[in-house]
Amino acid sequence: MERGNIPRKIKGFRDIDADLNELRQTIIREAGKVYRSYGFEHWDTPVLEYADALGKYMPDEDTVDKGVYNFRNPEEEPVLLADGNEMRDADAKVVMDFHPLAMRYDLTAPLARVYSERLFMDVKRGQIMESNAPLFRRYQYGPVYRYELKLLPGRFREFWQLDFDTVGTSDVAADAEACMILSDALEAIGLERGTYIVKVNNRKVLKGFLESVGIINEEQEGAVLRVIDKLDKIGWDDVKLELGKGREDASGSKIDGLGLSSDTIEKIVGFLKMATGLSTRAEVLRKFEEAAATNPTATEGIAELQKMDSLWTKLGFDESRIQFDPSLMRGMAYYTGPVFEVESLLVAKDEKGRERKFGSICGGGRYDGLVEKLLGLKVPATGASIGVDRLAELLRMAKPGQVTAQGPVFIAYFDDELQPEYYRIARMLRDAGITAEVYVGNAKGFKKVNKQMAYADKKNCPLAIFIGGNEAAKGVATVKNLKLGKELEATTTDKQAWISQVQQEVPLTELVDYLKKQLGQ
Amino acid sequence: MERGNIPRKIKGFRDIDADLNELRQTIIREAGKVYRSYGFEHWDTPVLEYADALGKYMPDEDTVDKGVYNFRNPEEEPVLLADGNEMRDADAKVVMDFHPLAMRYDLTAPLARVYSERLFMDVKRGQIMESNAPLFRRYQYGPVYRYELKLLPGRFREFWQLDFDTVGTSDVAADAEACMILSDALEAIGLERGTYIVKVNNRKVLKGFLESVGIINEEQEGAVLRVIDKLDKIGWDDVKLELGKGREDASGSKIDGLGLSSDTIEKIVGFLKMATGLSTRAEVLRKFEEAAATNPTATEGIAELQKMDSLWTKLGFDESRIQFDPSLMRGMAYYTGPVFEVESLLVAKDEKGRERKFGSICGGGRYDGLVEKLLGLKVPATGASIGVDRLAELLRMAKPGQVTAQGPVFIAYFDDELQPEYYRIARMLRDAGITAEVYVGNAKGFKKVNKQMAYADKKNCPLAIFIGGNEAAKGVATVKNLKLGKELEATTTDKQAWISQVQQEVPLTELVDYLKKQLGQ
Repeated sequence: MERGNIPRKIKGFRDIDADLNELRQTIIREAGKVYRSYGFEHWDTPVLEYADALGKYMPDEDTVDKGVYNFRNPEEEPVLLADGNEMRDADAKVVMDFHPLAMRYDLTAPLARVYSERLFMDVKRGQIMESNAPLFRRYQYGPVYRYELKLLPGRFREFWQLDFDTVGTSDVAADAEACMILSDALEAIGLERGTYIVKVNNRKVLKGFLESVGIINEEQEGAVLRVIDKLDKIGWDDVKLELGKGREDASGSKIDGLGLSSDTIEKIVGFLKMATGLSTRAEVLRKFEEAAATNPTATEGIAELQKMDSLWTKLGFDESRIQFDPSLMRGMAYYTGPVFEVESLLVAKDEKGRERKFGSICGGGRYDGLVEKLLGLKVPATGASIGVDRLAELLRMAKPGQVTAQGPVFIAYFDDELQPEYYRIARMLRDAGITAEVYVGNAKGFKKVNKQMAYADKKNCPLAIFIGGNEAAKGVATVKNLKLGKELEATTTDKQAWISQVQQEVPLTELVDYLKKQLGQ
Repeated sequence: MERGNIPRKIKGFRDIDADLNELRQTIIREAGKVYRSYGFEHWDTPVLEYADALGKYMPDEDTVDKGVYNFRNPEEEPVLLADGNEMRDADAKVVMDFHPLAMRYDLTAPLARVYSERLFMDVKRGQIMESNAPLFRRYQYGPVYRYELKLLPGRFREFWQLDFDTVGTSDVAADAEACMILSDALEAIGLERGTYIVKVNNRKVLKGFLESVGIINEEQEGAVLRVIDKLDKIGWDDVKLELGKGREDASGSKIDGLGLSSDTIEKIVGFLKMATGLSTRAEVLRKFEEAAATNPTATEGIAELQKMDSLWTKLGFDESRIQFDPSLMRGMAYYTGPVFEVESLLVAKDEKGRERKFGSICGGGRYDGLVEKLLGLKVPATGASIGVDRLAELLRMAKPGQVTAQGPVFIAYFDDELQPEYYRIARMLRDAGITAEVYVGNAKGFKKVNKQMAYADKKNCPLAIFIGGNEAAKGVATVKNLKLGKELEATTTDKQAWISQVQQEVPLTELVDYLKKQLGQ
């Protein structure tokens, strides 16, 4: 049985072509500039990590094995104990293992690892305590990996995130700042105000409210939060059923309910819907106070939101950019305080003309317990993440053609004798800041102009230069404006007229200036 | 036995901090600009691939399992035959398997996969043949992974490459261009002319010469090439021993020799050393002709080098940038024609003051057989790769301090009441194009100025702004020039004089202008 070497990608993985890369790079560059302008440093971490150093924080998962690409290190190494020392067997021999590795599933877990690794020994020696844990603000971008069994359309197993985080502060000024940064970054990327909204909530407020209606153990609270988090996908009716007696999904499988009383369910739904129709953050804060201010956890959460609101107001970030949303959950189990999410309000049409909404394009929140799991020291942290590929897809569909990769000035190949001259001209153009490519296709098809023009067209080349023996003898080049040519093709029927508008003979000595004018430089 | 969650990285992997990232990004940005100026498009491919789609092209390895991080796909999928159809068992049931996956070990194998995947069906249908295989020029960068058992100092298992390739042409103008691009890119990154040299050879010349001394079977030829490739590491004497009777290495293990006669060995060594003392490419070409022009393979190779030389000469790339080196091999088994390598001539001192050479920082060559293995169609290709992390290390050591991440203007935190004002000022600075960060460290250590200044120092902040109650009342800020402060510290003994030079009270209305002047903007 002969197995094939079939050229193909793994399901859920994809190649990024020049146009999509241009979008991705625009997002990273513009948002990165904003992150840096707030003082975040650019860091990077490995794609591959020890599974136990990443921890078990996948959304909706309680084990790192689920939803993650993991395998055993090919290198056998000592097993370490929780104190960092090597594990030994009864004969005092070091216990060895091929350690489980995992491809990172987000950039937050590696951040916790970076921060913890750098302080681990100092904490063990008692030199670093809660009171002097250092502040660390970094941004990072790159691919993350999720082994999602059911791969929905438009979802990928390898996708890019662009995160910024502040580790080492409990001050929600950092959370307020995070929301402003998301807003600034999206506008820098090209989203207009009014086409997105930063939605903010606080886990503490909901947690306090749930306590006040009798949901006090963590497991039950977690179950309630997970149901509420599904609101966008399943709607209010099914949320109510899952909080109560359970339901059947579309395929007929039974989903167990949490068995809450209908009275409790109504109270919860009422709480989540309280902001409906309210237009200001101040109104939501007042409603929060009415609903939950008797509970100390909720009180704390409301005070945090008040502080954030007042900073935003002082800095001019009103409700056209940032709003409170009492039903906002965020999937990650590690959030402990303020949570935020950016919803795109753009509606785009896909290839088949169907309307498509994009929903959440960024998310984040405070995770005061994450570093503690690795470092044994409670170090509070907060941050947010832009879904780069999701945002790129949004820009591509909502603003088609706005960001595309521009091709080089194309220099056609006609004459073997002139090849060095083609390269000399290309270099002259490059020295003048004009990108230029000499066609170097397979020798057998060299002089086929159609093939060359198809190549230039595919690459989105704005201009083409033709130099044959006659032109060379006269010291001129024929320059064709490919972009204009395409535009005029639709309206011009007279071929001769079209050519005279699109094509021009230019002396080589004036070529650079002519091209610059044509390129609008 | 409790296992630890120890915050640590896998051996051979590392975190990239802000300074190193600045270097990496400078390299990618500047070289990327050069690549684009020659018409190469920016593409990206997954980090993870089917192992059989990557092929078996690791240097010095004949199987993809060695030297590569690989594991089984957690998803069971049909096994495909070489024609792309599903494999079926005796009962016509599709045979399923958990396919072997591998983390990419370079960016060339994925390029061959991209090119082949996009044409696979067209080739099967007979629509694409050798004569009309399209031209494709792309550049790509990102991490690659090698599971090197013996990890030498300064080597990593995850490192970045920055490649550009031209697929679809047998014209060595593309090879000549590749060498010029490497030279342009390195100078754009900041290497001065004379501190690097692009070395070029042609496998065909050596192959032809080896044929002429009786080494005609491919296996033997490959073995000879692998020995010669070790020249830099082991030197002439050991190369001779390995071509002959073998030798013992430093650890006393026996390395088998190839058993060539001493006459043959002398001829080979003579050939490899022929360029010693020659200063022009023309002289080397003449020597090549004397030594090997009776062999048709060598003749072809020499003609290719002649064409490349003439293009370089026409475009002004003389021997100060590009030289021929008859002993240059390049490790990759897939090279079939011209090969190139950039050697850094810089000597830097490491932390311990020892001199360190960097050797090869870029490499590439023509690989006319690589696409064929996946596509079943002979499509010639050539390209080169910059070792990003190696070059970053070189720049860091050879030009210390030249590229470092600049921190933001630092706004110290003194007064809870003034926090919104701090953020307002930061925003004012950002709106004027000045990066600015308000200190937001752990509430418990908030007002400790020492801790704040240590933070600003670590981040390489150029300026710090202090506003306490008094300053706020007066509408001023105290601005301290941290950079100047450090410079003057070494020479100034009078603290009062130092402060007056370094510190200045500035009205808030003039703050932006003052900071811009201090920052040299």
